[in-house]
Amino acid sequence: MKKKTTIYDIAKKLNLTAATVSRALNNNEKISENTRKLVQETALEMNYEQNTLARALKSGKSYNVGVIVPRMDSNFFASVIRGIEEELYPKGYHVIICQTHDQENLETGNINSLLNAQVDGILMSISNSKTKNQIFNSLSRKRVPLIFFDRKKDISGVSSVTIDDFNGAYEATKHLIEQGCKRIAHLSNDRSLEIFKNRYLGYKQAILDHGLELDESLVIETHSKVEEGRKTAKALLSMERPPDAIFSSSDFTALGAIQEIKAQGLKIPEDICVVGFSNEPFTRFMELSITSVDQSPIEMGRMTAQVFLEEVNNGKNVKMEKQIVLTPELIVRKSSLKKQ
Amino acid sequence: MKKKTTIYDIAKKLNLTAATVSRALNNNEKISENTRKLVQETALEMNYEQNTLARALKSGKSYNVGVIVPRMDSNFFASVIRGIEEELYPKGYHVIICQTHDQENLETGNINSLLNAQVDGILMSISNSKTKNQIFNSLSRKRVPLIFFDRKKDISGVSSVTIDDFNGAYEATKHLIEQGCKRIAHLSNDRSLEIFKNRYLGYKQAILDHGLELDESLVIETHSKVEEGRKTAKALLSMERPPDAIFSSSDFTALGAIQEIKAQGLKIPEDICVVGFSNEPFTRFMELSITSVDQSPIEMGRMTAQVFLEEVNNGKNVKMEKQIVLTPELIVRKSSLKKQ
Repeated sequence: MKKKTTIYDIAKKLNLTAATVSRALNNNEKISENTRKLVQETALEMNYEQNTLARALKSGKSYNVGVIVPRMDSNFFASVIRGIEEELYPKGYHVIICQTHDQENLETGNINSLLNAQVDGILMSISNSKTKNQIFNSLSRKRVPLIFFDRKKDISGVSSVTIDDFNGAYEATKHLIEQGCKRIAHLSNDRSLEIFKNRYLGYKQAILDHGLELDESLVIETHSKVEEGRKTAKALLSMERPPDAIFSSSDFTALGAIQEIKAQGLKIPEDICVVGFSNEPFTRFMELSITSVDQSPIEMGRMTAQVFLEEVNNGKNVKMEKQIVLTPELIVRKSSLKKQ
Repeated sequence: MKKKTTIYDIAKKLNLTAATVSRALNNNEKISENTRKLVQETALEMNYEQNTLARALKSGKSYNVGVIVPRMDSNFFASVIRGIEEELYPKGYHVIICQTHDQENLETGNINSLLNAQVDGILMSISNSKTKNQIFNSLSRKRVPLIFFDRKKDISGVSSVTIDDFNGAYEATKHLIEQGCKRIAHLSNDRSLEIFKNRYLGYKQAILDHGLELDESLVIETHSKVEEGRKTAKALLSMERPPDAIFSSSDFTALGAIQEIKAQGLKIPEDICVVGFSNEPFTRFMELSITSVDQSPIEMGRMTAQVFLEEVNNGKNVKMEKQIVLTPELIVRKSSLKKQ
C-alpha cells in the first residue's frame, strides 16, 4: 500500500515548516496569499488527503461563508456579492452562493444545503416574506451567524445592512413632481417585503407632502421583469386619465414600461417621465438613459461582510444586533429630465 | 439535560414513518418535494441536529453540486446556472456557486472550498488557461466528477459541453461580408482559452473563404468589458485605413465599440457594422439593437447537469468521457443590417 502524503512531506518538498503548511492548508490569514496558493496546489498535486471532516469538527470552522440571493443575474446582487468577496477573501474566507429564484421552498433548502456544507455563516437577502421565522431562529440556535442585506426580516438578534428605501422613493417622486408631473403612477412589487413597502410609502409621502392627489388606481403591484413592465404600462396608458409619469420600484419594469410607451408613439420625457430603481448598468447604456436610484451595492456587500467578521470575532458567547442603513442616491438621466 | 430530537419524534409529529422522514432529510427524490420541505422545516423547528458529518461519511453523498464560473453578472453564465438548477433540483440536488473573476488563485481556492463543502461533483467553466492540470486531475483521483462547460481544457477523462465557437464566428463574419463589408476588425480576447481561439479562427476562415484580405492589424486582443470596447474602437478608428465592420467576441466590448463609434459621429450600420457574441439581453433592448451569436445557455446548463447525473449513476468504477458541442445561432439585428 502506498504511504499516505502527510503535511511533513509537503513541508519538505516546499522547504517550509510543517506549521506553515498546516496554517496554509487551513487558510490562515497570517500566511501570504501566494504561499497559501502554493501549498494548496502542492497538496493537491501530491494527492494529500486533508481530513476536512476532522478539521471541521476540531476547529469548528470551514472558512466557507454562504450567501443566498433571490437572483444572481441582476447587477445589484452581483455587485453586493462582489463587495462581500472583496472583504472576505483577504481574511482567508471563501464565498459560496445559492439563489432562490424567489421560491420559498428553495430558501429553506438552500439554508439546509449551506448548513450541510458546514459554512461559518450565512449572509442573505430574503426572497419571500412567508419563509418561517423558525428557520432563521434555528440558525441562531446552531450559532451560525446570520446577517440580512437589502431584503430583511425583523428578527431579534439578527443584524442587517439595508438602504433607506423610503428616502430613495421619496426623492425619486419629488424629482418627478419638480419636473411638473401631476399624475405619477407607481409600479410596486410584493409589499409584504419591507423594501417594496417602504418604496411605496416614500412615493405616497412625497405625493401628499406636495399637495398632489393620491390616486391608488395608479399604484400597481407587479414583478421585476421587463415583460411585466410592458404589460403594466399598457394597462396604465389605457386608463381614462393616464399618468404623466411612472416611478418604478425596479429598473427592469421601468425598461418594459419605456418600450411600451414608445411602441404607442408617445414621447419620453415630454409626454411621460420614467424613473427606475437600482441603477442597473443598462439604465446608463440606453440611448434614452433611465433615471434611477443607486443603492451602493458594493458598499452594502462590504458592510455585510464586516458585520459577519465582527460577529465571528466576538465569539459565540456575545450576542449583537446591528442595523446599518445606507442612503441611496438619485441619478437623474434623460428619461425624466424635462427641465434642465 | 434536554433529550435530543430524533427522527422518530419528527415522524410522530408529522404522522409519517421514520423511513420517510429519513429519506426526506436525505433529499431522496422518491419523496415528494412538498413532503421533503415539510420534514426539513419541521426538523429545523424541532431543533433536530442531523449528524451531517456522519451522514456524509456513511453515504458518501452531500447532494450538493458545486458550480464554478468566471463571473455571475453576465446573463450567459446566469442562464447556464439556471439550466443546471432546473435539471438538478428535481433530483434532490442543491447547487452552490463560486465565481473566480478570472483570477487563477481563486480557481484553485474555489475547488478546495467546494471539496471542503463535500460537493458530489463540480461543474465548471475555466477562467484561466494557466491553472494547472494537476488540480483537475486531483478531482479525478478523489473521484469527484468534474464536467466543463463553455470554457474547457482538454483533459483526458473529463466530459464537456461547449458550443461550436468556430462556426458561430464564421457565420457572424460571413454575414458581415454579405452586407458588403470589406475591412472587418475582430475584437478578440485571451486566445490561450479555446473559445476565443476558435472565434478568431472562424473569423479568419470566413475572411479567407470569401477572398478578402486578412489584415492581422485589425485583430485586437482585449477584455470583455464595455470600457475596453470603447478604447479598442478608438484605436481602430484612428487607423489610416479604419475598418468598415467590427466582429466582437463579446457583447460587452461590442457595446463599448458602439458608444465610441457614435461619439465620433459615425453611423451604424451605414458607416460601420457591429456584431457581438453571447446574445446578452441588452443587445435586444437597445434602440440600436445589436446583432449577436446566441449560445443557448439554458440548454448548455441542462446538458451539463445531465452529463453529471449520468456519471453519478454510472457509479465510481465506470469512466466515461463525453464531448457535447451545441450549434450557435446568429441573431441579426439593426447594428449590422445594411441590406434588408
